Formats: sequence, structure tokens, C-alpha cells
Amino acid sequence: MIDPRRLRELKKLADTLGIKTVGAIDWQLLDQALISPSFSQVFNNDQMEFLGDSVLRLVVTLFITQGFSDRSLGEMAALRSNLVSDQTLAAIAEIYGLDHYMVMSPAARADLNGRQSYLADALEAVLAALYLSTKDFSLICPWLHPHLHRIADQLFAQPALGNFKEALQELTQAHWKSLPEYRMRELDPIAHLFQAEVWLNGCCWGRGEGKNIKAAQQAAAAVALVELQASLPQEKS
Amino acid sequence: MIDPRRLRELKKLADTLGIKTVGAIDWQLLDQALISPSFSQVFNNDQMEFLGDSVLRLVVTLFITQGFSDRSLGEMAALRSNLVSDQTLAAIAEIYGLDHYMVMSPAARADLNGRQSYLADALEAVLAALYLSTKDFSLICPWLHPHLHRIADQLFAQPALGNFKEALQELTQAHWKSLPEYRMRELDPIAHLFQAEVWLNGCCWGRGEGKNIKAAQQAAAAVALVELQASLPQEKS
Repeated sequence: MIDPRRLRELKKLADTLGIKTVGAIDWQLLDQALISPSFSQVFNNDQMEFLGDSVLRLVVTLFITQGFSDRSLGEMAALRSNLVSDQTLAAIAEIYGLDHYMVMSPAARADLNGRQSYLADALEAVLAALYLSTKDFSLICPWLHPHLHRIADQLFAQPALGNFKEALQELTQAHWKSLPEYRMRELDPIAHLFQAEVWLNGCCWGRGEGKNIKAAQQAAAAVALVELQASLPQEKS
Repeated sequence: MIDPRRLRELKKLADTLGIKTVGAIDWQLLDQALISPSFSQVFNNDQMEFLGDSVLRLVVTLFITQGFSDRSLGEMAALRSNLVSDQTLAAIAEIYGLDHYMVMSPAARADLNGRQSYLADALEAVLAALYLSTKDFSLICPWLHPHLHRIADQLFAQPALGNFKEALQELTQAHWKSLPEYRMRELDPIAHLFQAEVWLNGCCWGRGEGKNIKAAQQAAAAVALVELQASLPQEKS
């Protein structure tokens, strides 16, 4: 049985996510999804994160193939890289203040370098809990899709439509008077898999993979683009 | 509308897969899933392969977390690497003679080096078509799960239970009088992602990734183990 105080917290989280059919939620699973391995090595969210990663990937791929089927496969892959990245997941987790619901050791909570990773892991575990509650995506899509839409719109609203490298170049020239640098690695010479990193001002802003150098750079640029836009001072609307 | 002769072929494929509820299948989608980009650049299976990759990953991860939740995360990840690999997918596609249902250019069909890749892609696209037909996994699990079970049993039936490196070492010593060689790459120093390759007799038999060297080697060993076992002469039963 779940502690009544904990249950109240979890109901508040479901409310924050905007979930209407809370009766469908398996609260025990949602509870476990928010327990970090730093708190308990035995009862924690690590298996649910393992599952949630795959739940997220299918939700995101369905979103892309339904909404952006006119795009090239390279653009779709770049968008997917961005939407499933730890950066994106952690940013969504921050919006909902997910760390307030997490059970973790004080040391892990104080580790700022690990923050992106534990937030992303917890959000993935929450996706697994919600998927397992209903065996479909009905508890997930209503609140996750608006975020996916917002990020996809940001990416595709660039003047260099869908060409993330060109859009990134325009952005960095306009705001930092410098060009991004791409650092390449060949991950797998047999399967022709490449990894690109985008560096600017001594930081790596995005990472992406692809079956050729261009595709890997586009994927990395798509991640960096959203990150760098988010780092700009907000314009008044 | 779909050509009646093509429809008969596709019904034969559904029958071969053992699908009982053929009325639920979207035949247009299944038709498209079997059209290679080598045949048509416009109407082919590339977007469905993009989606099917994610469908497969969720089906496999659910299979693992439901059936092998007592295993370590490292073992689960190694098993997943194996089950979603092109090698495994192509082997399953061969069992059903999937190439007989594929529409592709004669040059692509004759390309033996590309065979594993186009069979794996087509099987993933078929998974997408079946998922989209019902929006669940009911057309997939009944025929795919037995294959997943068979491969998982092979992996976990080793004397060195779940320790794929040890099991591989025993196998190669027994049959080839030599030890496998692991070649390592650090894919991503920031996220601590490693890739291992298993080499024996001048061939790479498996590849795997992991968050540390041991995990990457276990994942690669799990792939190599099944491949090398399959390469052995069949014992009489």
C-alpha cells in the first residue's frame, strides 16, 4: 500500500501534468518511477527508465511520422535526436518541477552535474509508469505532445527551413559573431555510423549520430539550435 | 486499391506469420512495407522502417522487462542489443522468406552485402504496418515473441549464466581453441559511452554499446555468442 501523504503528492503531480483520467494511473508504479537509485539500490526507477526510453522513442516517432511526413528522413531523424535527448527531457521535467516529487539521496540531489541525467531518467520512468497503467499512450500524449510541437515548431520555424546547420550558423553569427565548430567521430566504420558534436565558445551544445557526416551534423545542429535559442535572453512578446 | 494478385501474396505472408485476425491488417500499409527504396524513391518503406525500429524496440523492451526482470540491467541491455540487431532481424526475416514478398530492383536483390540490411529494414517496416493497423502489438507479439524467447533462452542457457563474456570465452575455446578479442572505442567521453567489438579469426562477430567498458563488452559478447553458435554445425537432436 502507498503512504497517503505520498499519494497526495503524486496526485498533485498528475494534476500538474494535466492528466484528466487519474483513476487509470497505477500509483505504485508512478511512486517507483520517482525513486532514484541513489536512494535505494533495490527498489528504484532504473528498470522503468530502461522501459520508458523505448516508450518515449515510439511516442516521439509516431508524433514525427504523423505530423512531419513531408520532411526528409534526415530531418525526421534530426528532430527525433532532439526530442529524445536528455537535454530536452530534463527541460520538460524542469517545467513540471519533477525533482520536487523525486526521492533521492541528498548527495545525488546536490550533484548539479548529474541533474540533467537524473531528471531525464525520472521523466522516462514516469512515461513507463503511465504506459504500463493503460498499455497505451492515452495518459502521455495529451501533456507531452504540446512540448514536442513547441520544440518541433522552433526547429522548423528557422529561415533555413529544416536545414539545421544553416539555421544554426545564422543564429550563432547573429548573436555570438562566430561559427559553430563540428567535431566528428566515426563510431562504426563497418556500419558507416558517424557522431558529430557542435562546439561554440568552449561548450558542446549538441551531439547527433547519422549514417553519413552530413546527417550526423544535421542531427547535432538540431539539438544545439534549441539549446542555444533557449540560452538567449527572452524577447518580450 | 491494391492489386488482387499482390493481395493474395500478402495474405500468404500473413498466413506464414501465423496471424489469425487477418481482417485487422491494413494491406496497403503492409504492401508499402515491402517496397524497397531501390524500387521507388517516392513510394517505399523508408518512413515505415523509421517507425518500425521504435515499434520493435518497445516490443522487445516490454518482453525483457516482463520476462527477465530478475536480471541485471546490464544483462537486459545486452539482451536488447542482441534482439534489435540487424543480424537477429535478418535471421527472423529469412525464416519467413521475407525477400520473396519484397519489391526491389534486381541490382539491390543481387547485392549480397546489402542483404542483411534490406531484410532487417523490411521486417521493421512490416512491424510498423502491423502496429499501425491496430495501434497495439496484437498482430506482432504472437509470432515475434517465440523468436525472442528462443534467442533469449539460447543466451541465458549458457553455463556462465548471463555472463556473456565468460560464456563466449568457453565457446570459442571449445570450438576454435582461441579467445575472442575485444576492440574498444570511447564513443562519447562526456556521456561515458563505450563501444566494444568482438573479433575472432579476423571477423567481427558482434558489436555493443554500454556506459562502461564492461557493459559494452557484455553487450557485444551477447551478440557474438548467438552468431557463433549459429555458425556451428547443427547437432543431431
